[in-house]
Amino acid sequence: MRIALLGYGNVGRAVARLLESRRNHLEGIGLYPKLVAVADSRGVAINPGGLDYSKLEEAKRSRGSVGFYPDYGRIGVKAVEIISDRLVDVDVVIEVTPTNIVDGEPGLTHIREALKSGLHVVTANKGPLALAMPSLLELAHHTGRGLMFSGTVGGGTPFIRFAEKCLAGDRILGLEGILNGTCNYILSSMEDGLSFEQALREAQRLGYAEADPSMDVDGWDTACKIVILAVHIMGARITLKDVEVKGIRGMTKEYLTEACKRGSTVKLLGSVDAKRGRAWVAPVEIPRNSPLAVSGNLNALTFHVENLGSITMIGKGAGGIETAHNILKDLIELKMKLQYRSI
Amino acid sequence: MRIALLGYGNVGRAVARLLESRRNHLEGIGLYPKLVAVADSRGVAINPGGLDYSKLEEAKRSRGSVGFYPDYGRIGVKAVEIISDRLVDVDVVIEVTPTNIVDGEPGLTHIREALKSGLHVVTANKGPLALAMPSLLELAHHTGRGLMFSGTVGGGTPFIRFAEKCLAGDRILGLEGILNGTCNYILSSMEDGLSFEQALREAQRLGYAEADPSMDVDGWDTACKIVILAVHIMGARITLKDVEVKGIRGMTKEYLTEACKRGSTVKLLGSVDAKRGRAWVAPVEIPRNSPLAVSGNLNALTFHVENLGSITMIGKGAGGIETAHNILKDLIELKMKLQYRSI
Repeated sequence: MRIALLGYGNVGRAVARLLESRRNHLEGIGLYPKLVAVADSRGVAINPGGLDYSKLEEAKRSRGSVGFYPDYGRIGVKAVEIISDRLVDVDVVIEVTPTNIVDGEPGLTHIREALKSGLHVVTANKGPLALAMPSLLELAHHTGRGLMFSGTVGGGTPFIRFAEKCLAGDRILGLEGILNGTCNYILSSMEDGLSFEQALREAQRLGYAEADPSMDVDGWDTACKIVILAVHIMGARITLKDVEVKGIRGMTKEYLTEACKRGSTVKLLGSVDAKRGRAWVAPVEIPRNSPLAVSGNLNALTFHVENLGSITMIGKGAGGIETAHNILKDLIELKMKLQYRSI
Repeated sequence: MRIALLGYGNVGRAVARLLESRRNHLEGIGLYPKLVAVADSRGVAINPGGLDYSKLEEAKRSRGSVGFYPDYGRIGVKAVEIISDRLVDVDVVIEVTPTNIVDGEPGLTHIREALKSGLHVVTANKGPLALAMPSLLELAHHTGRGLMFSGTVGGGTPFIRFAEKCLAGDRILGLEGILNGTCNYILSSMEDGLSFEQALREAQRLGYAEADPSMDVDGWDTACKIVILAVHIMGARITLKDVEVKGIRGMTKEYLTEACKRGSTVKLLGSVDAKRGRAWVAPVEIPRNSPLAVSGNLNALTFHVENLGSITMIGKGAGGIETAHNILKDLIELKMKLQYRSI
């Protein structure tokens, strides 16, 4: 399996490391991954014979780009050229460039070009999916290639797999939950007495929140995940613009304290209601004994299922490592599907 | 698919009703279930051409046994004779006689005889599995027949399917949870101020608890489920005698109130710890913000997984309907496996 890894940030590096450290395990199940191309924003490294993880790390760490990979690095070459100019033969593209919810780029073009060129795609990039998931799925279907994205939602907790594998045959009427661990951490800390700014700084210090926290605290990260869940699990045909989004920036610790006194807690929830055809993200007051009333940086998602009632799943949100593990699982599943020709 | 339904209580009747009401749906996926034999404790009804649901109900309701089924009923014939004396050709045995944790009978003999006779078995009967699961699985493996039991644990919440389908490839280090909705209901009511006896009577009035509540409140139902989870999900080779069991009969509302003051709540937990090789059931004080601190008659189970950390699933426990739905799902899965010859 010849792989082009587009994006070499937190997630991309974790993927490269996992492919290296799990090599024996993967070969044991018949999966021989070979990293033939790696791209970051400044350049690419390409070797049909396979790239070496330690040399990628060395180039990235010491000189800031994989484009400085000895002999095989090229600064100034764009990731998309690997696909469109067929710089090397590839079977699977792993797309992990930064999420962009304005136009989805460069991920959106990477995914489209890869599928059009007959390549399978595994991605953890929420932007392209949130903006164009229905059409991307159609493209994948049309070209008969895999488009896998289990790392996009609940990296540490297999929400998507659960719905796919365990709820198949039941009708999912709706879902709602906490899909952003950073916001949950901030709200929990504010209930403990911190101001929004203090809690945000603490989350940044712990590495939960980015320097630009807007994706998290303004609700966009949750909204992207809601789109992916609605489209994939519930068959909705929506994109990000169909989600009403309100974040947690306006929250005060006084408001949270009042809610506490009423036996409630405030959580940033994302929700899809199939019946009313509505999708939204907003801070909501819920009873303290609700299964969704989990604190810290946990994620939690309740599925409302026709026959089974409500089922809630609670677990860790995603860091780079968890997301990389999901990408690896997608690769394994892709390999199985190819083996049995089920795609 | 010719089916013998052994047991015609709550669950058995719900299964017969579902097979009837879902006929079109099942035929749509290529599954043609034909109920050729039904047994209760007093007699059997056998017709190779198929039994009629309304006539089964009529015989049971008006005269107390399916043995009074017009023309095809026989009082005094035992369920096991359907299999051992080959009274009719059968493909699958659905075993739903009452749970017996002393010697597992009559279910244990039914399951053994069915597997030895080359029949597939779908069961919701916890007794035989709790007492002899490792040997029953070996027998099924040896005879190449299916032994399916997803209705035994978390009927309303697919704990077993989740572990099978979503955690495959991860190592489950341990699990712990609330597996008996009746005990959870009683403990929740006691926290609200009822005595144990009051709470138990209320649970019986609502139909959560049996007239003989011992299976529930003395922890045996939870212990059976712990054995099934440990053997099936974690590969342990244990039976009921390996589980240390303590129920909730000794609980007082004063003790629960004290726990409340300490920011805790008391839950009847079952647990398997792979590392220490220990399985137990006992009332345990846990923090109120633990994901397992769910109230009412909910079930909740936390899986401790090597790569993913802790994942908790919360949902309804089982009534007859939920269990019957699980049996139907097992039949569908069995059909798929037979089709692809994967068993």
